Amino acid sequence: MAAPDNNILRPVRCIIKLGGSSATEKDKFETINESLLSTTAKQLKEAFVISSDKQQPTMDWSRGSNCDQASFLPEDSPTSEFQLDFNPFVVVHGAGSYGHFQASKGRVNRGDLAEDYVKAGFVATRISVTKLNHEIVRAFARECIPAVGVSPFSAGWSTRNRMLDRENTPHVQRLVQAGLLPVLHGDAVLDSVQGCAILSGDVIVRQLAQTLKPSYVVFLTNVPGVYDRPPSDQNAVLLKEIAVADGTWKIIDPPEIERGMKVQTTVAAHDTTGGMETKIAEAASIASCGIPVLVVETGSRHALEALKGSPLTSREDWVGTLIRQAGSEELEH
Amino acid sequence: MAAPDNNILRPVRCIIKLGGSSATEKDKFETINESLLSTTAKQLKEAFVISSDKQQPTMDWSRGSNCDQASFLPEDSPTSEFQLDFNPFVVVHGAGSYGHFQASKGRVNRGDLAEDYVKAGFVATRISVTKLNHEIVRAFARECIPAVGVSPFSAGWSTRNRMLDRENTPHVQRLVQAGLLPVLHGDAVLDSVQGCAILSGDVIVRQLAQTLKPSYVVFLTNVPGVYDRPPSDQNAVLLKEIAVADGTWKIIDPPEIERGMKVQTTVAAHDTTGGMETKIAEAASIASCGIPVLVVETGSRHALEALKGSPLTSREDWVGTLIRQAGSEELEH
Repeated sequence: MAAPDNNILRPVRCIIKLGGSSATEKDKFETINESLLSTTAKQLKEAFVISSDKQQPTMDWSRGSNCDQASFLPEDSPTSEFQLDFNPFVVVHGAGSYGHFQASKGRVNRGDLAEDYVKAGFVATRISVTKLNHEIVRAFARECIPAVGVSPFSAGWSTRNRMLDRENTPHVQRLVQAGLLPVLHGDAVLDSVQGCAILSGDVIVRQLAQTLKPSYVVFLTNVPGVYDRPPSDQNAVLLKEIAVADGTWKIIDPPEIERGMKVQTTVAAHDTTGGMETKIAEAASIASCGIPVLVVETGSRHALEALKGSPLTSREDWVGTLIRQAGSEELEH
Repeated sequence: MAAPDNNILRPVRCIIKLGGSSATEKDKFETINESLLSTTAKQLKEAFVISSDKQQPTMDWSRGSNCDQASFLPEDSPTSEFQLDFNPFVVVHGAGSYGHFQASKGRVNRGDLAEDYVKAGFVATRISVTKLNHEIVRAFARECIPAVGVSPFSAGWSTRNRMLDRENTPHVQRLVQAGLLPVLHGDAVLDSVQGCAILSGDVIVRQLAQTLKPSYVVFLTNVPGVYDRPPSDQNAVLLKEIAVADGTWKIIDPPEIERGMKVQTTVAAHDTTGGMETKIAEAASIASCGIPVLVVETGSRHALEALKGSPLTSREDWVGTLIRQAGSEELEH
């Protein structure tokens, strides 16, 4: 019986933020976007799992899966069907149409857990976001990705005045080293000052990235990348490459866009809307640590390229936004 | 906006082990025993929640609940519907018809997470037990109990050679102090020697009891209490009172049963069957710390009495087993 290789730290290849609207039907209360989620699961498998050519069976052996529980693993050849290895990665997802209604109605981010309606909203929010986490873990497991749900609330993550205070990255690191895929999510957590708060998935990604130091981070969103104005504006221009330094960022590509535009990269943990502002601030914060960030549309072929890390070396025909630290040769072309 | 009273530690009144077969149909794959679970939720509310007479609304605001999401909390009087306070308690549940099949088929308790079929079993087990946890939390929330799921795996609990090694009771304590009901469960966890293992709910209860020092512990089971032989044996006699000291136990009531019968109280963490042996060993271990343990049949009126702690002062007409430390006046009558 082999012990896990605790002494050999496997580097984390990628941390992925799966936007809430990329896994759910954002306007339909607690509804999974099954086809988009399934596409993402398949892309994760293609990008990270190193396996034999043969069909891998599901790891979801629960009711409602296609698994025939009675005959799943043949007793006489228990190891024959599984042959997998993968480059370590971590997924953090948002809430989409899960959790937002409850958090808003219960005023969870305003705290005051001693108020019973806030407490009710807190309980209801957690029920909703953990249900989504469960569905996402199952979707990954069906693609033979060894996904395990890790609720930040359960793992002891908490805030202080809505800013991340207590975290538990070492535990995530242990799970990665054990060959598992930790799947975290934006969550309702305790707050040491105001009682409770919302901890956004974007903040969790930044924290994990700073500690686990992945080769790159991918934000899977419902738009093709970062624009110079709201993407709904018909004049909006996709920013292909952005360089970040000292809390400012420069648009490198397209070059005709105003250079030197300053964007605050301070963390807006209280942005519970999942809006672009928090996302960009967190992405810039990650990039300023030297970890490139790719922002791309979920489910597209560009998403698959991003998950593979290909745009880091060549962005020909790639549609998305690369955010990276200023100063590298790559950026200053 | 009031901060939670972090400085005033509220004593934990009770820790409850909800047996897997008390919440699920043990012989039907992944099936909740809805009526028994609902009865237990109502009993928990009656035993611990101190509230006004008026109907409390549900805290389950998710799809499939009876909650009308659009009109749930009236904006003009957000606090009017909730008025609750409760004596702090903690629930730990078993797996029943969730998790056991997957853990057994995937040989999770034999470890070796590097084997892909064990890893698949590990992932499948966690999917199944977290689904049960989710359903139990929702059932409690529907009774306006502020329940929050805490998976031991996510919270960083782990084993070493199948024995509890790393735990996270301080986090459970924080949740209790925040006025929430933590709901933990038997789980598949990492094992620092063999890769992975099953951490039974009974072991978790013992660990929590030793640290949180509740006034009493209740084991809700599918039989009326502890017997001198398997309850299926028609000559089986219900043991009403047992005194524990120095790893041995004495049957106090009924007095005609052999005194001085010795039972090992060492912890059998590898007993994944949820059998009586682990349960009794853990109960004896808790009792020997001076914390009385009540073993009682789930859903019965005796269960409600046990949850209220009434059998600690009077056991007239009560059917169940009291296990407590030897030497007290109460025991030596």
